[in-house]
Amino acid sequence: MRPSGRKLDEMRGISIETGVTKHAEGSCLIRCGDTHVLCTATIEEKAPPFLKGSGLGWVTAEYGMLPRATNTRNRREASAGKQSGRTQEIQRLIGRSLRAGVDRVALGERQIVVDCDVLQADGGTRCAAITGGWVALRLAVNKLIKAGAVTSDPITDHVAAVSCGIYAGQTVLDLDYAEDSEAGTDGNFILTGRGRLIEVQMSAEGSTFSRDEMGRLLDLAEAGCARLFEAQRAAN
Amino acid sequence: MRPSGRKLDEMRGISIETGVTKHAEGSCLIRCGDTHVLCTATIEEKAPPFLKGSGLGWVTAEYGMLPRATNTRNRREASAGKQSGRTQEIQRLIGRSLRAGVDRVALGERQIVVDCDVLQADGGTRCAAITGGWVALRLAVNKLIKAGAVTSDPITDHVAAVSCGIYAGQTVLDLDYAEDSEAGTDGNFILTGRGRLIEVQMSAEGSTFSRDEMGRLLDLAEAGCARLFEAQRAAN
Amino acid sequence: MRPSGRKLDEMRGISIETGVTKHAEGSCLIRCGDTHVLCTATIEEKAPPFLKGSGLGWVTAEYGMLPRATNTRNRREASAGKQSGRTQEIQRLIGRSLRAGVDRVALGERQIVVDCDVLQADGGTRCAAITGGWVALRLAVNKLIKAGAVTSDPITDHVAAVSCGIYAGQTVLDLDYAEDSEAGTDGNFILTGRGRLIEVQMSAEGSTFSRDEMGRLLDLAEAGCARLFEAQRAAN
Amino acid sequence: MRPSGRKLDEMRGISIETGVTKHAEGSCLIRCGDTHVLCTATIEEKAPPFLKGSGLGWVTAEYGMLPRATNTRNRREASAGKQSGRTQEIQRLIGRSLRAGVDRVALGERQIVVDCDVLQADGGTRCAAITGGWVALRLAVNKLIKAGAVTSDPITDHVAAVSCGIYAGQTVLDLDYAEDSEAGTDGNFILTGRGRLIEVQMSAEGSTFSRDEMGRLLDLAEAGCARLFEAQRAAN
Amino acid sequence: MRPSGRKLDEMRGISIETGVTKHAEGSCLIRCGDTHVLCTATIEEKAPPFLKGSGLGWVTAEYGMLPRATNTRNRREASAGKQSGRTQEIQRLIGRSLRAGVDRVALGERQIVVDCDVLQADGGTRCAAITGGWVALRLAVNKLIKAGAVTSDPITDHVAAVSCGIYAGQTVLDLDYAEDSEAGTDGNFILTGRGRLIEVQMSAEGSTFSRDEMGRLLDLAEAGCARLFEAQRAAN
Amino acid sequence: MRPSGRKLDEMRGISIETGVTKHAEGSCLIRCGDTHVLCTATIEEKAPPFLKGSGLGWVTAEYGMLPRATNTRNRREASAGKQSGRTQEIQRLIGRSLRAGVDRVALGERQIVVDCDVLQADGGTRCAAITGGWVALRLAVNKLIKAGAVTSDPITDHVAAVSCGIYAGQTVLDLDYAEDSEAGTDGNFILTGRGRLIEVQMSAEGSTFSRDEMGRLLDLAEAGCARLFEAQRAAN
Repeated sequence: MRPSGRKLDEMRGISIETGVTKHAEGSCLIRCGDTHVLCTATIEEKAPPFLKGSGLGWVTAEYGMLPRATNTRNRREASAGKQSGRTQEIQRLIGRSLRAGVDRVALGERQIVVDCDVLQADGGTRCAAITGGWVALRLAVNKLIKAGAVTSDPITDHVAAVSCGIYAGQTVLDLDYAEDSEAGTDGNFILTGRGRLIEVQMSAEGSTFSRDEMGRLLDLAEAGCARLFEAQRAAN
Repeated sequence: MRPSGRKLDEMRGISIETGVTKHAEGSCLIRCGDTHVLCTATIEEKAPPFLKGSGLGWVTAEYGMLPRATNTRNRREASAGKQSGRTQEIQRLIGRSLRAGVDRVALGERQIVVDCDVLQADGGTRCAAITGGWVALRLAVNKLIKAGAVTSDPITDHVAAVSCGIYAGQTVLDLDYAEDSEAGTDGNFILTGRGRLIEVQMSAEGSTFSRDEMGRLLDLAEAGCARLFEAQRAAN
Repeated sequence: MRPSGRKLDEMRGISIETGVTKHAEGSCLIRCGDTHVLCTATIEEKAPPFLKGSGLGWVTAEYGMLPRATNTRNRREASAGKQSGRTQEIQRLIGRSLRAGVDRVALGERQIVVDCDVLQADGGTRCAAITGGWVALRLAVNKLIKAGAVTSDPITDHVAAVSCGIYAGQTVLDLDYAEDSEAGTDGNFILTGRGRLIEVQMSAEGSTFSRDEMGRLLDLAEAGCARLFEAQRAAN
Repeated sequence: MRPSGRKLDEMRGISIETGVTKHAEGSCLIRCGDTHVLCTATIEEKAPPFLKGSGLGWVTAEYGMLPRATNTRNRREASAGKQSGRTQEIQRLIGRSLRAGVDRVALGERQIVVDCDVLQADGGTRCAAITGGWVALRLAVNKLIKAGAVTSDPITDHVAAVSCGIYAGQTVLDLDYAEDSEAGTDGNFILTGRGRLIEVQMSAEGSTFSRDEMGRLLDLAEAGCARLFEAQRAAN
Repeated sequence: MRPSGRKLDEMRGISIETGVTKHAEGSCLIRCGDTHVLCTATIEEKAPPFLKGSGLGWVTAEYGMLPRATNTRNRREASAGKQSGRTQEIQRLIGRSLRAGVDRVALGERQIVVDCDVLQADGGTRCAAITGGWVALRLAVNKLIKAGAVTSDPITDHVAAVSCGIYAGQTVLDLDYAEDSEAGTDGNFILTGRGRLIEVQMSAEGSTFSRDEMGRLLDLAEAGCARLFEAQRAAN
Repeated sequence: MRPSGRKLDEMRGISIETGVTKHAEGSCLIRCGDTHVLCTATIEEKAPPFLKGSGLGWVTAEYGMLPRATNTRNRREASAGKQSGRTQEIQRLIGRSLRAGVDRVALGERQIVVDCDVLQADGGTRCAAITGGWVALRLAVNKLIKAGAVTSDPITDHVAAVSCGIYAGQTVLDLDYAEDSEAGTDGNFILTGRGRLIEVQMSAEGSTFSRDEMGRLLDLAEAGCARLFEAQRAAN
């Protein structure tokens, strides 16, 4: 039995509200249950130095969490003087995932920075950040298209992410914090709209899992991402 | 003529939405026009080391701004590795101001941390943070009272802040970014509900002002704060 | 009764010794009672990047305190690895204040850095730094004029600062450390030689003040700055 | 055709030399082809603060790379003033993986720190670090057993890691740098001696992969780890 | 011929003014020609952690240079966020040298911190810091003796330092900046009042020297330190 | 009697293994008894900025120690966020020493970076780093000569270093850790192949020494370096 009373393959409610900040080229507030992430996309006409003269664009991401997004207050990273290893790991993952859905030639030599800031956390923040980050990216790219700055759509496919894990011996979809903190194995699955895999990260802190369990988690992830792609389509 | 079309003594629309995050002991989202600040108050049963054994409580504040809260993206302070001088100056101001409305003996030897994070900026973020921060503090203290953790109300008065300045030769109330970036003189006025002054910061970057102008700005500030106290009362 | 035996409106003895270091373009050692600050002005022919091509000059300041300038030793900021919020707040204030007395067009696209290092502290270090910093700046600009590097005098007026506060219920001028550490309200007032205000910072740590008290403090400040302008004129 | 001339399922030569430093409680130099990692295990009788009084032990890891371990010199992280996101990600992975093969109750309230320093890199450094780190850990724990400090063996199983990926359209085992830098998809697979999975990290930088390909990579990884477990057994 | 016109074995004028700051337990301003260093000694009743319970005292030093102590302005280390390697090297040297003249048992379990801040630099700042630092230390220890906090004098001997080098092919005493920046070989010699050596640091940046030259430099250093011991005795 | 049983003027066994890493232009693993240092030399075709256009080359060095190179584990400097004062002091010494054996005009406007990483420490790591660093530098320069990048040999002489000290009242050669940690006086002597001195650093932590003792230590150092030059010649 899941703490939330959800069925094993039941996702939390998803809402994606777009245009939530007046300054950003693209923005949304994604809510996956009680996990709320504010995503903004910023277009910078200058690509990073390592791409100078290459004609290729870049998509990168930064991730943050408000100090009291969690049950007990976390130290503010700006005050601590550095981003934690966890934060860096997450923002590298978001960037890699979003780039898998982008044609960097079509984007041209510019950069889009996707900022994902967790306002409230209840598990699955990095997955919500990827799913919402894609929407912010989509909206920003729409502006480029409308302005004639790109001649073909640089976005090649949807990108979304969901977590699955083994909780109390059962394979479950879309873990919330109560499950995540107890799960023996949990994983993040990032997929494209056509069902291709971008990234699979399965981890068993102090535990292990079998190939068979891995397959069942993947089944759940495919079903979950289908739901997320719908929500993304509805949001635009 | 003000860029927004407002009258010289007209404030922007104010809204204070409480209970916006499920984890914090007190929280609100304050909107002063297009300036939106998420304020949370966290109760920590342990006071800072310098108060150990004193029986006195402490209220402190931290301030942050999402990278794309502004018109062009600002570098994330966590990634830059330090808080700017401006950030530190602001959060010290918020803490000092809120403490002026608190009876630290009645609070007892515990700490309340008020986090003010700007989701969208359009001038006056520090004033909005103080006004909204007070609401989050008020709500958190209500929990202490309800739980019987304090025997008398540690909050002695309302605290609110507003900016005024000299824009295009006129004294104006509640500057937005368009005004703030052009104003010869601008100031922040922090007042108590009873009309006492807590802090006055008037600054004339590359310019100067007279005592008479200072008096007129103070008149505007008193009128503005009266409006903010109403909004605070309505929010609780 | 003031701890020093001074009258309510009595300043401490002021001395300004110029030319105290052979390397700097302008320098002085200012002594306001037992507060001693070494001020140097350095001319850099290159303006900061944000002014490139603007034709405008810049004046900036840095502030430091020797570890044993105070009664108990403070940790050296260079060893701590960062400047405190207080230090940054003060040096931003010094820079803003000095710029208010400078015509940045006449200065031309160059920068003057004013370093204010407290050798001995007894309250009012930021005010002494501004008053002495102006003298160092004046001397450095004199060199520019003498060398024909500027065609009209970029300095438009004197700038000086004094602190006033409410000590033991009385409004007093030029607080020393014994008063400053006990004062309910204290403020820094930065004025031009013509009596215009540049900056007013009044703060009531854990306390409040009235408009009437604010007016009386301003009266004291005007009288105090008049004395400082005399000392500046005598020093050149 | 692989750049090294190896068959698709052929690993590089493995050697594990133990006792390579006289100070550490356990140590080895692991060579996987031209990737050479020096692994040491340090026993600290004090567990980290978050385990105080829990009776549980901890295994953690740190990872580093000598500046000229690579083809072009990398900046020394100690001189840069921080560990890169990549370094932190890797050392967190090593620590998690090794803990999956440890009974933390049997270990008792102490900590073992495994340092993995890459002397020469040619792809797969994190996998070599895990495989060699396990050997250093095994040797250190042997000392605890011999000294009677633990009553049952805290090590529950072997842990080893190998990378697999899709290179030039083919699924290949144990990528070297020439392959790794070109591979569309690559992954790290961490297994226990009994064939259970600890961690799977598959990533397709700017590309995607299918479930079928994922299965084939897992087959290769199982075969590869079998070879690594043999090498670990031979080394002890 | 030396740039200053001094003879090969001629020192610069030395002056040591004591009691220059009212807060420190011991202080002096030492002037060796145009090199001016403000030295203060602070008594801390708590020894550093590594001496806890040992009954031994400690003497340590910190060194700094005001930004405009030099001909061109140096970046402030507090603002740069770290002390340079040069600064750390110098302050470690000062601390080691002063400890050689102290009986740490007689000092008792307390610490004396000697701060040496260069107000104006013209070569030989570390030597002036040691010579002046000893005077500040002597004065602080005198207070301990007077207060009965120590029963025998913890200071066992004078400590002073002088630089010598090979300039334009000649061995010269007490190099100023003009010489120091051109010297093939230069060295710092730290001696006790009884003529014993504490530290010898000879360095030939891009050059070399002979044993015979080393002997002649040592002769000069002995003569120079004799002069410094006189100045120290006159200062007390 | 020395802890190792060595005679007063007996060095530890020396071995220098070259070509130990496939990437670096020059490399060796030097073993002086139980002190093992991996040295690599990297040729960078770009000289540091301060030499731009000068036609002069540069040789610099960096030094590090693996966390468990020592008897108890040291904190990793990359994780601590900075290099210690000791590390910076050592790497500056290595760089200066190697430059004394290099004709920077002949080297041409390029830089060679010598990295010295201590794999196992037993005293004398900085001396081993200099002696081994020279071999790595020699090998890298050989490549430049072979490639015709330089027309005459930029290396003018051998450079080697040895430590000597006063242990248990006796002057001894090549201190190991057991001696070094107890020695009243110890020194590092850096010599050229022709017997000229490059650097002499004698230090008496909490103690003193005479000119006569200094002479005897220098005799030992000359004998020791003769042995090291042989080992360098044999290694090439």
